[in-house]
Amino acid sequence: MTSALFRALFAPRGIALYGASGDAEKNTARPQRYLRKHGYAGTIAPINRARREVLGETAYPSLAAAPGEIDHVFVMVPPGDVPAACDECFARRVPVVTIFTDGFGETGAAGRKVEDALVARARAAGVRLLGPNSIGLVSTSPGTALTVNASLELERLPVGPLAVVSQSGSLIGALLSRGAARGIGFSRLVSVGNEADLSVGELVDLLVDDAQTKAVLLFLETLRDPERLALAARRAFEAGKPVIAYKLGRSSAGEALARTHTGAIAGDDRAAGAFLAACGILRVRTFEALIEAALLAIGQRPPKGRGVAMMTTTGGGAAVVADPLGAAGVELVTPPPHLAAQFRALGVRVLDSPLIDLTLAGTRASVYGPVLEALLASDHCDAVVAAVGSSAQFHPELAIEPILGARRKHPGKALAVFIAPEAPASLELLAKNGIAAFRTPESCADALAAFLAWRVPRERPRVEAAPSLEDLGVPQAPSQRLHAPDERITVPFPVAIKIDSPDIAHKTEAGGVELGLRDAREAAAAGKRILERVRAARPRARIDGLVASSMQTGLGEAILGYRVDAQAGPLVLVGAGGTLAELYRDFALRLAPVTLEEAREMIAEVRGFAPLRGYRDAPRGDLDALARAVAAFSRLAARPDVAEAEINPLLVKAEGAGVIGVDSLLVLRG
Amino acid sequence: MTSALFRALFAPRGIALYGASGDAEKNTARPQRYLRKHGYAGTIAPINRARREVLGETAYPSLAAAPGEIDHVFVMVPPGDVPAACDECFARRVPVVTIFTDGFGETGAAGRKVEDALVARARAAGVRLLGPNSIGLVSTSPGTALTVNASLELERLPVGPLAVVSQSGSLIGALLSRGAARGIGFSRLVSVGNEADLSVGELVDLLVDDAQTKAVLLFLETLRDPERLALAARRAFEAGKPVIAYKLGRSSAGEALARTHTGAIAGDDRAAGAFLAACGILRVRTFEALIEAALLAIGQRPPKGRGVAMMTTTGGGAAVVADPLGAAGVELVTPPPHLAAQFRALGVRVLDSPLIDLTLAGTRASVYGPVLEALLASDHCDAVVAAVGSSAQFHPELAIEPILGARRKHPGKALAVFIAPEAPASLELLAKNGIAAFRTPESCADALAAFLAWRVPRERPRVEAAPSLEDLGVPQAPSQRLHAPDERITVPFPVAIKIDSPDIAHKTEAGGVELGLRDAREAAAAGKRILERVRAARPRARIDGLVASSMQTGLGEAILGYRVDAQAGPLVLVGAGGTLAELYRDFALRLAPVTLEEAREMIAEVRGFAPLRGYRDAPRGDLDALARAVAAFSRLAARPDVAEAEINPLLVKAEGAGVIGVDSLLVLRG
Repeated sequence: MTSALFRALFAPRGIALYGASGDAEKNTARPQRYLRKHGYAGTIAPINRARREVLGETAYPSLAAAPGEIDHVFVMVPPGDVPAACDECFARRVPVVTIFTDGFGETGAAGRKVEDALVARARAAGVRLLGPNSIGLVSTSPGTALTVNASLELERLPVGPLAVVSQSGSLIGALLSRGAARGIGFSRLVSVGNEADLSVGELVDLLVDDAQTKAVLLFLETLRDPERLALAARRAFEAGKPVIAYKLGRSSAGEALARTHTGAIAGDDRAAGAFLAACGILRVRTFEALIEAALLAIGQRPPKGRGVAMMTTTGGGAAVVADPLGAAGVELVTPPPHLAAQFRALGVRVLDSPLIDLTLAGTRASVYGPVLEALLASDHCDAVVAAVGSSAQFHPELAIEPILGARRKHPGKALAVFIAPEAPASLELLAKNGIAAFRTPESCADALAAFLAWRVPRERPRVEAAPSLEDLGVPQAPSQRLHAPDERITVPFPVAIKIDSPDIAHKTEAGGVELGLRDAREAAAAGKRILERVRAARPRARIDGLVASSMQTGLGEAILGYRVDAQAGPLVLVGAGGTLAELYRDFALRLAPVTLEEAREMIAEVRGFAPLRGYRDAPRGDLDALARAVAAFSRLAARPDVAEAEINPLLVKAEGAGVIGVDSLLVLRG
Repeated sequence: MTSALFRALFAPRGIALYGASGDAEKNTARPQRYLRKHGYAGTIAPINRARREVLGETAYPSLAAAPGEIDHVFVMVPPGDVPAACDECFARRVPVVTIFTDGFGETGAAGRKVEDALVARARAAGVRLLGPNSIGLVSTSPGTALTVNASLELERLPVGPLAVVSQSGSLIGALLSRGAARGIGFSRLVSVGNEADLSVGELVDLLVDDAQTKAVLLFLETLRDPERLALAARRAFEAGKPVIAYKLGRSSAGEALARTHTGAIAGDDRAAGAFLAACGILRVRTFEALIEAALLAIGQRPPKGRGVAMMTTTGGGAAVVADPLGAAGVELVTPPPHLAAQFRALGVRVLDSPLIDLTLAGTRASVYGPVLEALLASDHCDAVVAAVGSSAQFHPELAIEPILGARRKHPGKALAVFIAPEAPASLELLAKNGIAAFRTPESCADALAAFLAWRVPRERPRVEAAPSLEDLGVPQAPSQRLHAPDERITVPFPVAIKIDSPDIAHKTEAGGVELGLRDAREAAAAGKRILERVRAARPRARIDGLVASSMQTGLGEAILGYRVDAQAGPLVLVGAGGTLAELYRDFALRLAPVTLEEAREMIAEVRGFAPLRGYRDAPRGDLDALARAVAAFSRLAARPDVAEAEINPLLVKAEGAGVIGVDSLLVLRG
C-alpha cells in the first residue's frame, strides 16, 4: 500500500551518508553508528573524500562511486558544500535526499535563495528533499535510524503504533525516549526541518497508508502547507488514524522562539487553532499528552457530548485531575440512578457528587472491575477516567487487571487512566495493552479536553455564487454620505455624524464622531464641529466628507469579522462588542464559511454574550439572528477578491427583532 | 529546638497501634509492618482485644496494659469504637492520638458532633489529636512510618529537606513515591484529615523549628485555620523556609470534590489565592511542581522583578517551556549587550531573540558552563532556565557537571533546569545537588511563575481609627432621597432617578432607574413612571421612595468591593466596571487593608482598565485617584461590624480629575 517515496524515506534499500565522519565522537558519525546499532539491513555507503574507510566500512569519494541501490542520501557537509553534494544526488536520481545541514531558509533571504534553487533542481531531477535543517528520521521496524539525534543511543527502538512528524528536530528524541520509558512505541519519527520540499502535510499523507502507523503526532511551530495538511488529516480521519498536534505559539514569546529557531514565520495561534480543529486534528497543550493522548483516540470517533465520568480509589488522586479538567471547561457527569443503585449494590458509598469514590475498600477487583465496566457501557458519558492509587505501585497486575478486563469487554468508549503514585510498571502495562495512561493529572485533563473537543473534519467549502457585502443578508443601518455639513439628511433621525476619511481608522479618537443628533440643525452644527476638530487634529488626512447614519439601539454589541489568514485560509470571527473581543480575546473563530449550526456554536463560546442569553431577568437578545448574520457573513469566503471585512458594531436587538450593523469595512486584496 | 509535641508526633519513644490486625493483608496491619520495615526503633504495642500476639509482637488487650513510654497512639478501630479507644488515651494522657478512622465531621452534622466531643475531652486531658480521617504520618530519619498509606511498601524512605502537610491522605503516598523516584527526599509527611484539633497551620509552625526541614509543601483542599497558617508561614519565611502550596478548587468541579471527599467546605478559590499570596506562600498549579519547585525557592528570597533568562542546547526543548511561561504572563529577557558580546566570544550565535540557543555545538562544558555562570551572575534577570537536550540522557555527569559547577559559584539566583528527553539519572543528580529540575515543561513554567509571583509576607493590618463610609475619602456623587416624585431636587441637574427599596437588588431590571433627566419636570415624570412600573413588577417589595443623584460622566467604570471571607478574612477588590468583573473574572483581590503601592499593583492586573491606561490615543484615566480610592476603601478592614461594601460603578475621570462613586452599598454583620 505504501508508495515508492514512502519506501525510499523509511525503508531504503541503500543509504549514502554524505559527509560521514570517521571520528566516532562527532555528530556526523552518529547516523552510521545508529543505523548499525539498530539493525539496518541495507547497504550503508559513507561518502568521504578524505578516507577509504569510515568506522570500519568502505567509504567512497563521491556518490557516483558508491555501488548498489542507493534510495536515500543523508547530507551532512558544511552549508557551502551542500549544493554540490545535492547535484551528485540529482545526477544519480536518488529518490530522496535528507539534508541535515542548517544555514538555509531559516537564516534569511540569502539562505532562502540557495534553498529555493536546490528545490528547483531537485524537482527537475525528480528527486525529493527532506529538510534542510532536518535531524533525520527513524523507522522502528525494520530498524532504520537515519538521524543525528543522540536519543538513538538507546538500547532498543520502541516499536509501536505512533508516528511523529516534527518541526523540531531535537524533540523527536525527547518524544522517543519518553515513550520508550513508558512502553509507548513508535512506527516512524521524522524531523521535517525547513520543509523546503517535503512538508508536514505530505508526510502525514504518506503515513496514512502505513500499516504500522495507527496515529500521527505532530509537533508544530507553524503551518507551512496547510492545504496539504488538511487533505492528509481528512484521509487519516477516514482511515481511523487520529492526528494529534502540539503547537507552539500560545504565547507571543513562544511565537518569537518559533520564528528564530527554525525560521518559521508563526501565524496567529488562534487562527491555527481554528484550522487544526476544522481538520479534525486533536490539539493538546501539554507536551507529554502528545504521546499519551494517542491511545485515548485510537479506535474512537469524535464524541457526541462532553460528559466525563470519573471513578477512583483515591479521592485526592481524582481531584487533581478534576481540577484542571474543570478549568478547561469540562465538567464531570453524575451517574444516572440505575447505575448509582448498581454501585450501591456492590458496596460503594455513592454520594451526591459526580465522583465515584470507591475508597481504599474498592481497590478489590470485584468492585473496581464491575464499576468500570458499567461506566464504559453507559450512555450517560462520553469518556471515562479511572484514577488509581498506591495499589498500582507495588501490585501492577492486581491493580491493572480489572481495567484491562473491563476494557476488553467494552472497547467502544474513550478511557483515560491516571495513576497517582510513581508506578512505571502499571503505566507500561496499560500502554502495552493499548490503554491511555497518564503520568500527570494535567496531561490527563488536557488529553481529555482535546478528545472532547474533537470533531469530524469539516467539509470543504462548496463553491457558490459570490455575494456582495449588501447581498450577504446582514441588515445595515440606513446611512447617507454628506458632502457638506448642511446637506439635507434623508435617513431617519436621530442620527450619528462621522467623518469620512480613508486615512482615519479610529474616528472617535480623532474627534470625528458625534452621536444622538435629533434634527437637521443639530446635525449640521455637529458636522461643522467634526470637520474643524479633525482638520486641526489630522491636517494631512484626506477628508471625503461626512456620513450620517440613523442611530440604532440594541441590547448588546457584537463584532463580526472576516479575514483570509496566510496560513489557515478564510476565517470568520464573532466576538463581544466594544473592545471586549480584543481586551479579553473573547471571540470565536472558524474557517469560513460556516453553517448556521456552527455559527450557533461560535456564539455559545463568547462569554460576553452572557447578558444576551438571559441574565438576571434581562431581556434576551436575538442570538438566532446573530447566528444567521455570522453564517451569511462567512459566505465572503466565496469572494477571492476580499482580504478582510468587518461589521463593528453589529447591534443585537431583542429576541425576534434582529440585528443591525452600524459600521462596516471591506478590504480588497492587493 | 523542637517541642514535646513535635517529638510525640514525629519521634515518639513508643507507639500503640489501637486496632492493629493480625492479618498482614489488612490495611490495619500496615502501620505495624511499615514501622518495622523502615526501622522504627521504639516500642510498638499493638492493642487487640482478641489476640495476645500480632504479626510476631506481643499484643495488649487495652492501652492501659501496654508497658513503656507510649507517646503516640494510632487508632484504627471502627467509628463506633473510637470514643472508647480515645478515652483510654485520655486517661493515660498520651501526648498525641492519631485517628485513622473516618466517618466523623466529613459525613455531616452527627459525625461532627461526635468529633467535637472528642476534641473537647482531648483538650480537657491535655491530649492532642491528629485527624480523624488521617492516613497517618511519616518521619524519614529516624524512620517512623506510622501510616496506612500503601506507598510505604517502598524499600527505603527517601530522606531529604521537604516536609509535606496534606489534606489528602492518599496523596502523601503519591508525593513520596514520585519524589523517591527522582532523588527528591522528605523529612516528614503528615496527613491532617479533618483537622479537628491539629491544623495545617500548627503543623507548619512545628516544622519551622525542625532542623531536617528546609521547605514545607502543602496540599490543600480548603483553608480551615487561616490565622494560624498566616502566622506559621511568616515564621517559616523568617526562618528562610519556603512554603509552597497546591490548592484544589480552581474549578467548581474541584470545589465540589473537595467538599465531598474530606468534608471540607471549600471557599472561593480567588480569596484563598489572595490569602496564600499575602502569607508569602508560593502557589503552584501543577501537581509535580509541588515537589519540584521547592528547590527553586530554598535559599532564595522573593525576586524583585519578573525577568527570566533562558539558555538551551535544544531550541524545541526551550520553546516548550517558554510557551506556557508566556501564557502565564512571564516573558523572557534578552541578555544585555555586554553579555551578548561575551557569549559571541564563546562562539555562540546570539540572535535577536531572548533565547540563548547554544545549539548542539554548545553541549560542550566549555561553552555551557560559562554561559550559565554569566547568566546566574547577571542582574538583568531574576531567574534562569537551563534547558538540556539528549546529552542528559546517556551522559548525565557530562551534561550536568557544568550546571553543578556554575551553581556552586553563583548560588544566589533562582535556577530551574528542564530536561527534554527522559533522563532520570540527570534529574536525580540535579536534585541530590539541591538544584530544581523539572520533568515536564509545564511544571517548569508553573514553578517559575509561582516563584516570580512570590512576595514577602504582608504586614498584618495595623489597628487604626475605624472610618465611616463617608470618611473613607472616596468621592460620591451628590444624591438626595425623595419621599415623593415631585419633591424639590437640590442636587445639580441632570440627574438619575432610582427606586429606593431594600428588596430590589437589581434596580434596572425592575424598571427602577431612569437616567439623564434634565430638569425638575422630567425628573418628576420619571419618578412617577418608576413607581408605577416597580409597583406593578414587584408588588410585594417595600418601597422607601426614590433617590435622585447628579449624573456623572467618566472615561471608564470600575467596581470597588470589600468583603470579609470566612476563610481568608477581609478582602478588597477592584475590577473592570459593568459586568466585566463578573463575566471575565477581571478583578484583582488582596487581603485588606492595602497600601497605595499595592492598590497600584492591583489596578495594573485588571485587563479592562487597558483603555484607561492610554490606548489608541484615547485620553488616560485618573488611575492614581483610583488607587487612592482602593487603598482608602480597604481601610474598612478596621471596621469589624462591616461584612460587605461596594461602590459600583465608580467612575474614573480623566487624568487629574479624580474618581466618583455613583452607587454604594454597605452590609453590616449579623
